[in-house]
Amino acid sequence: MKDSKLSHVDSDGNAKMVDVSEKSVTKRTATAQSIVVFPEAVFDRLSKDNFLGKKGSIIQTAIIAGTMAAKKTSDLIPLCHPLALNKIQLDITPGNKQLEITATVKCEGKTGVEMEALTAASVAALTIYDMCKALTHDISITETKLMAKEGGKNAFNR
Amino acid sequence: MKDSKLSHVDSDGNAKMVDVSEKSVTKRTATAQSIVVFPEAVFDRLSKDNFLGKKGSIIQTAIIAGTMAAKKTSDLIPLCHPLALNKIQLDITPGNKQLEITATVKCEGKTGVEMEALTAASVAALTIYDMCKALTHDISITETKLMAKEGGKNAFNR
Amino acid sequence: MKDSKLSHVDSDGNAKMVDVSEKSVTKRTATAQSIVVFPEAVFDRLSKDNFLGKKGSIIQTAIIAGTMAAKKTSDLIPLCHPLALNKIQLDITPGNKQLEITATVKCEGKTGVEMEALTAASVAALTIYDMCKALTHDISITETKLMAKEGGKNAFNR
Amino acid sequence: MKDSKLSHVDSDGNAKMVDVSEKSVTKRTATAQSIVVFPEAVFDRLSKDNFLGKKGSIIQTAIIAGTMAAKKTSDLIPLCHPLALNKIQLDITPGNKQLEITATVKCEGKTGVEMEALTAASVAALTIYDMCKALTHDISITETKLMAKEGGKNAFNR
Amino acid sequence: MKDSKLSHVDSDGNAKMVDVSEKSVTKRTATAQSIVVFPEAVFDRLSKDNFLGKKGSIIQTAIIAGTMAAKKTSDLIPLCHPLALNKIQLDITPGNKQLEITATVKCEGKTGVEMEALTAASVAALTIYDMCKALTHDISITETKLMAKEGGKNAFNR
Amino acid sequence: MKDSKLSHVDSDGNAKMVDVSEKSVTKRTATAQSIVVFPEAVFDRLSKDNFLGKKGSIIQTAIIAGTMAAKKTSDLIPLCHPLALNKIQLDITPGNKQLEITATVKCEGKTGVEMEALTAASVAALTIYDMCKALTHDISITETKLMAKEGGKNAFNR
Repeated sequence: MKDSKLSHVDSDGNAKMVDVSEKSVTKRTATAQSIVVFPEAVFDRLSKDNFLGKKGSIIQTAIIAGTMAAKKTSDLIPLCHPLALNKIQLDITPGNKQLEITATVKCEGKTGVEMEALTAASVAALTIYDMCKALTHDISITETKLMAKEGGKNAFNR
Repeated sequence: MKDSKLSHVDSDGNAKMVDVSEKSVTKRTATAQSIVVFPEAVFDRLSKDNFLGKKGSIIQTAIIAGTMAAKKTSDLIPLCHPLALNKIQLDITPGNKQLEITATVKCEGKTGVEMEALTAASVAALTIYDMCKALTHDISITETKLMAKEGGKNAFNR
Repeated sequence: MKDSKLSHVDSDGNAKMVDVSEKSVTKRTATAQSIVVFPEAVFDRLSKDNFLGKKGSIIQTAIIAGTMAAKKTSDLIPLCHPLALNKIQLDITPGNKQLEITATVKCEGKTGVEMEALTAASVAALTIYDMCKALTHDISITETKLMAKEGGKNAFNR
Repeated sequence: MKDSKLSHVDSDGNAKMVDVSEKSVTKRTATAQSIVVFPEAVFDRLSKDNFLGKKGSIIQTAIIAGTMAAKKTSDLIPLCHPLALNKIQLDITPGNKQLEITATVKCEGKTGVEMEALTAASVAALTIYDMCKALTHDISITETKLMAKEGGKNAFNR
Repeated sequence: MKDSKLSHVDSDGNAKMVDVSEKSVTKRTATAQSIVVFPEAVFDRLSKDNFLGKKGSIIQTAIIAGTMAAKKTSDLIPLCHPLALNKIQLDITPGNKQLEITATVKCEGKTGVEMEALTAASVAALTIYDMCKALTHDISITETKLMAKEGGKNAFNR
Repeated sequence: MKDSKLSHVDSDGNAKMVDVSEKSVTKRTATAQSIVVFPEAVFDRLSKDNFLGKKGSIIQTAIIAGTMAAKKTSDLIPLCHPLALNKIQLDITPGNKQLEITATVKCEGKTGVEMEALTAASVAALTIYDMCKALTHDISITETKLMAKEGGKNAFNR
């Protein structure tokens, strides 16, 4: 365990935002993933259509939704700081019966962009779900996790 | 596969919102889950503190964040219809090294609330992550999926 | 006390949104007020300028801000239901060293619009504060309260 | 009166945002309060329940709502600048038949965070109202005002 | 002139939202257009690339942005009513040195969806601009107008 | 054509946000216009009323709506970076059967504010449309374009 206390909980147990006033501004990057798993028949059919619903819109729509969601992170996660993001990139690639989403976010600020990367990946995954749910509800979103971060006090690499 | 076409993709491959004009208004419910998995030492410590960061704020904050996110679903997922929700309920319970989130959403409308339930569960999971990330980044969000839906053309039950 | 329990708290003490599924749709109206109190010299000056900052923008801006805020109520108050509003009206009139805001909101729905009226009045008051704070910080917002409601289970009239 | 003109009104009387381009970036803090006054019987009951609706959710929910609202200030108040906030803290304590909210906001920017602190306190107060309105509508929100600010051209302390 | 008064202005000249309480719920549709005009060389190049930036993202991104913007109309236009939309469709087709956007919106409500269709078309146009502005700033957005509406008191057809 | 590639499209054709990490922070300004054209009889009547709906609200409301929209630009345009704006100013003046909107936005950042100025002008134009549409639907919004920008790699002046 890298830290000895939960930074978001004050001495009375009430939720509070961490004070980043004294932290220095550095360039920060975080990469997160999320995976959308399909039943084989559904995946085969999506795959045969190039995972694209004819002209690419499933992946395109999910990339755009994830990009826009990264910008809403501090509006969704109560104790996140609002940050000016320098870059949001999502990549979605087919794997074994699954679509694999990778989201990388960069900023130059006093706190990291892990939550922005995780939110981008999660909302891209939800969007894929939404665009495929007419085919099946046997879809699950799994392994949403941080893959790497750098630029803050502690780097992290899976 | 319950349906023979992807309802969100038009004949040119461009994304489009489904037309629900001719669907009838019915009472609809959907339940989704999401699971947050911790390293054992972190989970034990959270558990010893009653998963609560002293006075309960991790679970409380996640429940509120998930509730508010359900109301933002159509703002996050590009092709979702805006819906007047009648009820949003989140429950978060400890399991084996994990917190299990269940989100149930109800509406009376022309289209279902699966995405609202999935979004509520996902954002609650992201909030738990955010509130625990000072302890570890070895947290993953898994098994985000629909558990049940009723009130539309097809019921679903896992 | 009109009711024997707090409707927003479940048996475990966790926040939850009230289930309005079984409530009937009725026409509902609520009126709220909020009052902005100024130091005498500041009020006199504003008054001499017709409370208007030359061409009326303080009151106009506050009316528009309050109107827009009423539409954001369910995004601001965690357990409020999203509602389709039929009407939002704000009136702001000068009193004794104070500007008096009245906000009336109407909808046709399963739950009342008290919070929408209170939010509209509060944000109009905050906007007046913002537009006058270059003159003084000795402004206070007071007596934000419900004046009347009708159309639900219980009418209320102050 | 600390200033000789209303900074938000241009020479034609139209609303305009102040130009902060030439202001320097400094660390800024503002503290605001808002007070929620209850009828005695309602307050006693809330007090007996530790103001908490069994497990604390009234105060917890209000703290979270106020924190999230501070981040929405520039979306609510038409002429506010968007700011990257370093810290938002809300405290809610019981007084004589009332709950007293204090909100402190910090940023490092070209303009102050008074409106953010006032918005946080106001929305926390509205949330308390919402969570108690099943008991009574005889609640009023009062004395919403700035308590202190520092870091800009003029400090302020009540 | 179809109407003898400006419905959004009250007797004091203050902005107000129209009261639609007494209007009946009907199915409503509106179609709007907006046109993005390019310099010939830029248009030719975009055209040669199938207006698509290699795999179609300009048009796809604009369609998604317009769809999402339609849902934000009442948050953008101060006196618009929030509406539950049944359908949003955008089509973007190349013309003579221009991209032509058509947006159709449907709802079942007490007021029309003209502003939703116009907002969808406008934001799609702005998105096209944004995605092409690295090539030139000699782009203009023109002829944003209503093409047809039906379902309300007065139909309209250009 | 000032640039040899579309900066928003990656090598696979998927939409991506430009990485501004290595760009330097400079003071940036952009000015955009949009024009709302009316039928002569409608314009004359609006003009006779001083374009103001009795006490000025059409222009006032449009100025406020445009100001607030500039702050929402990165929420509307998928690949726009969120920016801390220093100044937003809208001017609306009558011309020949038309209202002419000019929007100027300033920031100190790594990327320009063209889209913010264009969004402000567009939403102000939509708001004018909304406030006059009870009189006629023969209104069109035209010539939305950038007038000038400075502070980035390339200045622009029409």
